[in-house]
Amino acid sequence: MSRFLTEKQKDLIPYTPGEQPKILNLIKLNTNESPYPPAEETVAAAEEEAKRLHLYPDPTCSSLCEAFAKRWGVDADEVIAVNGSDEILNFAFMAFCDETRPVVFPDITYGFYPVFADLNHVPYEEIPLESDLSVNPEKYMGIGKNIFLANPNAPTGIALSADVIEKIVASNPNNLVVIDEAYVDFGAESCIPLIRKYDNLLVTQTFSKSRSMAGARLGFGIGCKELIRDLNTVRYSTNPYNINRMTMAAGIATLKNDDITAKNCKNIIATRKETVAELTRMGFEITDSKANFIFAKHQKIDGKDLYLKLKDRGILVRHFDKKRICQYNRITVGTPEQMKALTDAIKEILEDLT
Amino acid sequence: MSRFLTEKQKDLIPYTPGEQPKILNLIKLNTNESPYPPAEETVAAAEEEAKRLHLYPDPTCSSLCEAFAKRWGVDADEVIAVNGSDEILNFAFMAFCDETRPVVFPDITYGFYPVFADLNHVPYEEIPLESDLSVNPEKYMGIGKNIFLANPNAPTGIALSADVIEKIVASNPNNLVVIDEAYVDFGAESCIPLIRKYDNLLVTQTFSKSRSMAGARLGFGIGCKELIRDLNTVRYSTNPYNINRMTMAAGIATLKNDDITAKNCKNIIATRKETVAELTRMGFEITDSKANFIFAKHQKIDGKDLYLKLKDRGILVRHFDKKRICQYNRITVGTPEQMKALTDAIKEILEDLT
Repeated sequence: MSRFLTEKQKDLIPYTPGEQPKILNLIKLNTNESPYPPAEETVAAAEEEAKRLHLYPDPTCSSLCEAFAKRWGVDADEVIAVNGSDEILNFAFMAFCDETRPVVFPDITYGFYPVFADLNHVPYEEIPLESDLSVNPEKYMGIGKNIFLANPNAPTGIALSADVIEKIVASNPNNLVVIDEAYVDFGAESCIPLIRKYDNLLVTQTFSKSRSMAGARLGFGIGCKELIRDLNTVRYSTNPYNINRMTMAAGIATLKNDDITAKNCKNIIATRKETVAELTRMGFEITDSKANFIFAKHQKIDGKDLYLKLKDRGILVRHFDKKRICQYNRITVGTPEQMKALTDAIKEILEDLT
Repeated sequence: MSRFLTEKQKDLIPYTPGEQPKILNLIKLNTNESPYPPAEETVAAAEEEAKRLHLYPDPTCSSLCEAFAKRWGVDADEVIAVNGSDEILNFAFMAFCDETRPVVFPDITYGFYPVFADLNHVPYEEIPLESDLSVNPEKYMGIGKNIFLANPNAPTGIALSADVIEKIVASNPNNLVVIDEAYVDFGAESCIPLIRKYDNLLVTQTFSKSRSMAGARLGFGIGCKELIRDLNTVRYSTNPYNINRMTMAAGIATLKNDDITAKNCKNIIATRKETVAELTRMGFEITDSKANFIFAKHQKIDGKDLYLKLKDRGILVRHFDKKRICQYNRITVGTPEQMKALTDAIKEILEDLT
């Protein structure tokens, strides 16, 4: 720490992203990337823009926002584009939360929410998941605080229906409800169709998971135009040129080829189903994941132990040192070949135990 | 404004970037971009990474920081990479400034500093430039507040020597001095060699101007490792994957081809000299710019009037509606052909007046 860091930031503990080791031939199942590369058209669009890097990108992101609007059936002023969805989550904390507008989120969820709260000095309450690791919507009805919910939740993958989320939104008319739909495309329902009905609903999504663009950094938010205007005020007060030219073009091209995204998601869902079946046969307890990851524990082996043994075998999954979930590992759904390597390795590890 | 915006953000007035109109054949001299496209190697490096967009970028930016470190003769832990230098300026406000650690900067300088101050609720004082629009270093000696100085300053282009800046830094040992060197490569001296001597000095630079990468979004900061560690704490608490894969690779490739940057800067400096001479002959008063722009006023025509008349002719320059400088226009140094078109147009405009 330098002697110039302010009092209010002295205790800040930053978010720890999943490891990105530079190990050759690693099977990387720890950060929920898509195993499928971007579409040819996406790559070509980014390449074309690389030739014009000397010119600033459009700070209004108008072409991109129009593409979002068309895809999700909203107006362009109901959409904001961001440098990965972490950026809009922070913007929402900056714009809408403070000491007088505290937040709630589950005790087990995306680990960045408490970091954003601390960074912005926003008081927060963590609402415990049920014993089966599901979110109990009743606990959020009329709670009278801003709510951040990942749906499907991470790292459990368990989703609430849009109907249930609508009840939470409707029961908290004077508080903002942020639904973080990073993993929605793998089998859950989006709340985007509700944004015209509720001015207190903000839905965020990312191109990092289902759209094979984690390396490009692109996320977006959809909500009523007043919310979007406020978020743009924050964006223009922090980093107006937040999205580079190549990513902007790649995002538009990806939306034009939405059939490829749909096909990839279908494949990932099928692979998830097969892997869950196989792991279940091997004795794992697994949550009902609607995301591109599997959250699993096994009575015979400690979560951290399994994580380390897999790492020794060149397979990286994500383990969280958090009390309620330390027996679990979060395993990204990769290609069928990667999942075969995973289940083979786990079989060996379990056999070695006996 | 939505009904959810917090009290503390209600009066926030965001930064206004230069216009980015989508007009064909516009001669765009308003945002200080390089007129020279990125090097072939830069484009090729970005293209190669576009194929791997499904994978997250390295959040530690280690290869990029090593390239920065090698280029500027520092260690990798004395460098932080950011999504355009606006990002690090905001990080510096977030980490090092608050109600008890106020800031000062010139009354005429980069218009984003007061926005960052307001966003972060940091009190600030604007120190008037001299009547010739230069920064008087005496006014900053032992001032006892954090200092933000653009060197060369914008939009005047006037630079202080590194020796003079060192005196400011040395006279304020308990305050942070941020030297924003966005335009340093066009004839000013960098303060990077001073960072080992002063733990209160942070130097920021950008790839948007001299390195033809405005569209890629890449900036960096260099300072003692404690300052850099604090800035990384903020980075990991807002957006750990702030730099996309393509930009990271493009940045490394650009540094490998530093001779191209040097050649472009030499050309821009030569074009600046010629254009200044021509505009002087036409009766303009011009500051001594060490940047890739010219700041000029003419007794016979109002600044805004000239800006509008040039715009009518398809030439965009930047005019600021600020009292002390509203007679001026800031004109980016483009190619010799673009500057010929500019001076021809101005000649016509001046002739039409008589």
